[in-house]
Amino acid sequence: MIKVGVVGGTGYTGVELLRLLAQHPKVELVTVTSRGEAGIAVADMFPSLRGRVSVNFTDPVEAPLGGCDVVFFATPNGVAMKQASAILKAGTKVIDLAADFRIADVALWEKWYGMPHASPELLSEAVYGLPEVNRTAIRNARLVANPGCYPTATQLGLLPLLEAGCVDVGGLIADVKSGVSGAGRKTETHILFSEASDNFKAYGVAGHRHLPEIRQELSRAAGKSVGLTFVPHLTPMIRGIHATLYARIEKEEDFQALFERRYAGEPFVDVMPANSHPETRSVRSANICRIAVHRPQNGDTLVILSIIDNLVKGAAGQAVQNMNIMFELPESTGLTQLPILP
Amino acid sequence: MIKVGVVGGTGYTGVELLRLLAQHPKVELVTVTSRGEAGIAVADMFPSLRGRVSVNFTDPVEAPLGGCDVVFFATPNGVAMKQASAILKAGTKVIDLAADFRIADVALWEKWYGMPHASPELLSEAVYGLPEVNRTAIRNARLVANPGCYPTATQLGLLPLLEAGCVDVGGLIADVKSGVSGAGRKTETHILFSEASDNFKAYGVAGHRHLPEIRQELSRAAGKSVGLTFVPHLTPMIRGIHATLYARIEKEEDFQALFERRYAGEPFVDVMPANSHPETRSVRSANICRIAVHRPQNGDTLVILSIIDNLVKGAAGQAVQNMNIMFELPESTGLTQLPILP
Amino acid sequence: MIKVGVVGGTGYTGVELLRLLAQHPKVELVTVTSRGEAGIAVADMFPSLRGRVSVNFTDPVEAPLGGCDVVFFATPNGVAMKQASAILKAGTKVIDLAADFRIADVALWEKWYGMPHASPELLSEAVYGLPEVNRTAIRNARLVANPGCYPTATQLGLLPLLEAGCVDVGGLIADVKSGVSGAGRKTETHILFSEASDNFKAYGVAGHRHLPEIRQELSRAAGKSVGLTFVPHLTPMIRGIHATLYARIEKEEDFQALFERRYAGEPFVDVMPANSHPETRSVRSANICRIAVHRPQNGDTLVILSIIDNLVKGAAGQAVQNMNIMFELPESTGLTQLPILP
Amino acid sequence: MIKVGVVGGTGYTGVELLRLLAQHPKVELVTVTSRGEAGIAVADMFPSLRGRVSVNFTDPVEAPLGGCDVVFFATPNGVAMKQASAILKAGTKVIDLAADFRIADVALWEKWYGMPHASPELLSEAVYGLPEVNRTAIRNARLVANPGCYPTATQLGLLPLLEAGCVDVGGLIADVKSGVSGAGRKTETHILFSEASDNFKAYGVAGHRHLPEIRQELSRAAGKSVGLTFVPHLTPMIRGIHATLYARIEKEEDFQALFERRYAGEPFVDVMPANSHPETRSVRSANICRIAVHRPQNGDTLVILSIIDNLVKGAAGQAVQNMNIMFELPESTGLTQLPILP
Repeated sequence: MIKVGVVGGTGYTGVELLRLLAQHPKVELVTVTSRGEAGIAVADMFPSLRGRVSVNFTDPVEAPLGGCDVVFFATPNGVAMKQASAILKAGTKVIDLAADFRIADVALWEKWYGMPHASPELLSEAVYGLPEVNRTAIRNARLVANPGCYPTATQLGLLPLLEAGCVDVGGLIADVKSGVSGAGRKTETHILFSEASDNFKAYGVAGHRHLPEIRQELSRAAGKSVGLTFVPHLTPMIRGIHATLYARIEKEEDFQALFERRYAGEPFVDVMPANSHPETRSVRSANICRIAVHRPQNGDTLVILSIIDNLVKGAAGQAVQNMNIMFELPESTGLTQLPILP
Repeated sequence: MIKVGVVGGTGYTGVELLRLLAQHPKVELVTVTSRGEAGIAVADMFPSLRGRVSVNFTDPVEAPLGGCDVVFFATPNGVAMKQASAILKAGTKVIDLAADFRIADVALWEKWYGMPHASPELLSEAVYGLPEVNRTAIRNARLVANPGCYPTATQLGLLPLLEAGCVDVGGLIADVKSGVSGAGRKTETHILFSEASDNFKAYGVAGHRHLPEIRQELSRAAGKSVGLTFVPHLTPMIRGIHATLYARIEKEEDFQALFERRYAGEPFVDVMPANSHPETRSVRSANICRIAVHRPQNGDTLVILSIIDNLVKGAAGQAVQNMNIMFELPESTGLTQLPILP
Repeated sequence: MIKVGVVGGTGYTGVELLRLLAQHPKVELVTVTSRGEAGIAVADMFPSLRGRVSVNFTDPVEAPLGGCDVVFFATPNGVAMKQASAILKAGTKVIDLAADFRIADVALWEKWYGMPHASPELLSEAVYGLPEVNRTAIRNARLVANPGCYPTATQLGLLPLLEAGCVDVGGLIADVKSGVSGAGRKTETHILFSEASDNFKAYGVAGHRHLPEIRQELSRAAGKSVGLTFVPHLTPMIRGIHATLYARIEKEEDFQALFERRYAGEPFVDVMPANSHPETRSVRSANICRIAVHRPQNGDTLVILSIIDNLVKGAAGQAVQNMNIMFELPESTGLTQLPILP
Repeated sequence: MIKVGVVGGTGYTGVELLRLLAQHPKVELVTVTSRGEAGIAVADMFPSLRGRVSVNFTDPVEAPLGGCDVVFFATPNGVAMKQASAILKAGTKVIDLAADFRIADVALWEKWYGMPHASPELLSEAVYGLPEVNRTAIRNARLVANPGCYPTATQLGLLPLLEAGCVDVGGLIADVKSGVSGAGRKTETHILFSEASDNFKAYGVAGHRHLPEIRQELSRAAGKSVGLTFVPHLTPMIRGIHATLYARIEKEEDFQALFERRYAGEPFVDVMPANSHPETRSVRSANICRIAVHRPQNGDTLVILSIIDNLVKGAAGQAVQNMNIMFELPESTGLTQLPILP
């Protein structure tokens, strides 16, 4: 059994991680920390876990994190970078679901996240945890930076095109729509039910923190710097990300075949038949990315639709997938629950 | 492996049953029938099942139902009663998720369901499939009438009181709220998104088909005829039933203890701590009924809150629970997935 | 033109009041106060008012409230009671949309609201602003206590029965469901979109602050103390209250006729045809209460369905209705907009 | 008073039109037709209109349409083209809210709408009813083709750029999201609450009927043929369209000023301050288009956000605006209700 610690179990990413870990056949959940809720039973805060998660929240300073095999950080940005070093020194692996180790360029990270980085020395070691790209590196990693939700959906939808060098990388467009849980379990006015329900809006058009992360990884795939316009939107549903991606064709290809080839054998990427319209609910609560390839009117613009559950393949599920790889378990272990539909 | 056939796999109860059966470790899904969709891959209609359910819909007349160990009817009312007899004769067990075998009194059934009953001779044999009441009879049954969703939530919330004889059985009130999936996957105007969203209404106040079913079972538990006012409501969510139940106290008891005692050992009934307010999402997609007991202002009226997912403990999950009992599997087999929250 | 001041314009009740006042042909909106938002244009905070409300939020201490003809308090409980006295002395009328002046019994108020009352001397003067009961007193009032949303729906549904003395007043049940805007524009976790959406729950079963208000008014109507079990619920919609009310018949009546007679001539109470099921969306954004009378199975229990928009007939619309009465305008002035459906 | 007839009053566009017409100070609603509902009171079908719309649905063949001053068609595509000619001959003006007269090229229309056009001779006379472009022609029109909802939001967002010739017209992208009421009040499975709620999907990527309409009008504005990739999406809200529009800059401009200049004086187009993120709810139920202009990272791609209520500025409200123009009323008559928020 893998001894697991979770730092920050009170957000949506945290409770989703607990749901998956509680059902994982090779995991022993050792400790879940929360500064604010220490002493309270996890299942009292999240009754969905009653009878299945028996631990209490522990104060972070008292939690036996060093005795774990792996620690997940489901914390706000800026927490893992302060604690990871000590945990790694104890021989424990770390998977950070926040953004602390996603950007290789410290200055860029500090500009977008507005704080000094506490552990820049760890950045070169951290592995960007997108298994479909970095599986081998993840296997050998001590420290994994779990990708963001927007970046996961966007990259999986664009990678085959960039790797094949068949689209104009200077004018990529990612119009991405997120369910409200992507904004976290924070008490902010704009995500109140009466604000976000029956409503649709764009936000962060001038620049969203996931932009440099996506650009870094797409540029790596393309082998050159990419130009990307990224517009996130808030849509009135709990879970789900729908990325609508636009790329201008520069080199003809059988694009459907290209995607099918690229993701053949991938357990959690499903290339749909040509001209499909995947719905976010078709992956609700499951660790799956579904992708559809379109070329409207046979013109020069490709439209790629890429969907995930932001809390699963976009966060907690992908983190467990990374753990499975790091501990040499079959990659799907504990991740085979079917989506909930309707 | 239990060889399973599903008649009518295109409704919400059907697709939920397929989700559960596809993940059940002891089930082999042999055939799924649909008149309208014969020949189409089940996973083409429900992409959530892609890669996990490989059968096509089969025309009902060609389906090898007699070769199954058990056949589930996830059909409209009036279908199972025509086909059950032949299937039973082939030595196959039958679990009907519709209402055909729920009412023991043929005349009463025909009055409420507006058609003649095709197999009245089976009614005495059919076992009402509420495991918390009829576990032993279910174990030996060939034909199980799976309870309705409103009846499940209402009965589990009232049974301890009626069995203990401590409330006025003449004036019970069940004010029950259902998610929209309870109305089925029918193309009716009132359940369109633009009609049912951001809206709340009562319906069927004059009389709903689940009323005689609830009354029959409550009367059985009370040992005498009960008077019940049952008001169903439609609430803008996909899944979930919330029964708010009112009963006037006739005999003092420690009501919290009464409920805890009654359901001790029940794998799928969770009596919450006193004064809890269970939320429907705390059982979303899981086979659980959570119950809370209240006695406001220490007055003479008890308020019992009873919640289920209408498609799981109120339909498909309970049907699988019944199958487990009938085939002497551990009752929780294939039913341990945690609720999806948020 | 009536010179109007609004204290506390940043909540849902406040913005709804501004919507109605901005469209009222006899109102001049003089000042809108907010401690936190002073100096900011009201229309910057609520873009729905762009081009139609040109004032900025003013700091409460600088606002020219004494120069107004009437001041509305759309503030949390406990604010109006501190400021009303000074405003009244300036010759300005006051309409409080919070609870400060709704309960005649100071001790009872202090028990339920958990603070000492700052102006107990005003309680005897304050008129409970339910026009269907107190129209004459409202006309002559300086200080009106606008009823709560649950109390409005519940009282309008039960008053005819209590006034006619035809039901058992000892065992009334009000099972009431509210849209989420009823909880206000507060940053609390339980009303976040990802918590309240696709979810249903009861709350405050042990005792809700609207209980003593309802009991006070129903007792007044009945001429004796009433026994009421009141269970509020949160339902995933923005606006709307649906009260399902249960009363045991003690004296036979033509109940449908009783309701029609009681509300004949009332501009904002619509008694539906017998056996109707009014939907909350049928009054969305309008100052209307629709009521339906049911007697299921011709038994001894009446079921009354009473619906309002909690922000309009349950708050801001009723407040404007009261203002119209106080200033001898036709009662419907500025309140004739049709409901928004779908 | 303008005598008004409405053909097809049972869809969402129809009921919204009735809501607006019933509140219009210069309108007398003479007749509302429906084949299926003839004889039934309009207010029985739509209780939101109780007490305010007193007519019954009339059979279309018996309706006194020729005696009206103007007839609105709120019918499916293909109805108005069969009846318009006779009505026009009677001297009655016609406003078609469907697509019959929107496309000037008959062959193109027939290709996209899949039927022969019944009145091609009327196409040259029909005026495309976008007041911000065709106000003068509308004033003199007998027959107005009211624009589609997607086309209204998309055109108002792109017109200033095309008219000014400052963007690449070959590679425009319109990523547009619609509330579910845009799909009409049809009993189709995919718009059931349990399908469309908590879900997001693209549809019609290969080609949607609004594409040729948008392309026709944008090409007219640009003075040359435009290349447009148009991707519609279904988002789980009742009302609202959010168009996110992408255009590559070819000529520098002060784009914010360009938009403000273009729409100066327009009563129903609101150019927001630079870098705004208009929300669909800020125009809910109102005849307003709000537009925000973005140039992310000061790059070469403009992002224009354009929002409307699909049933108002995208349908019924715009139709009433056209009527006002045609009958020389102030353009805002009957269209000044404020948006409903929350």
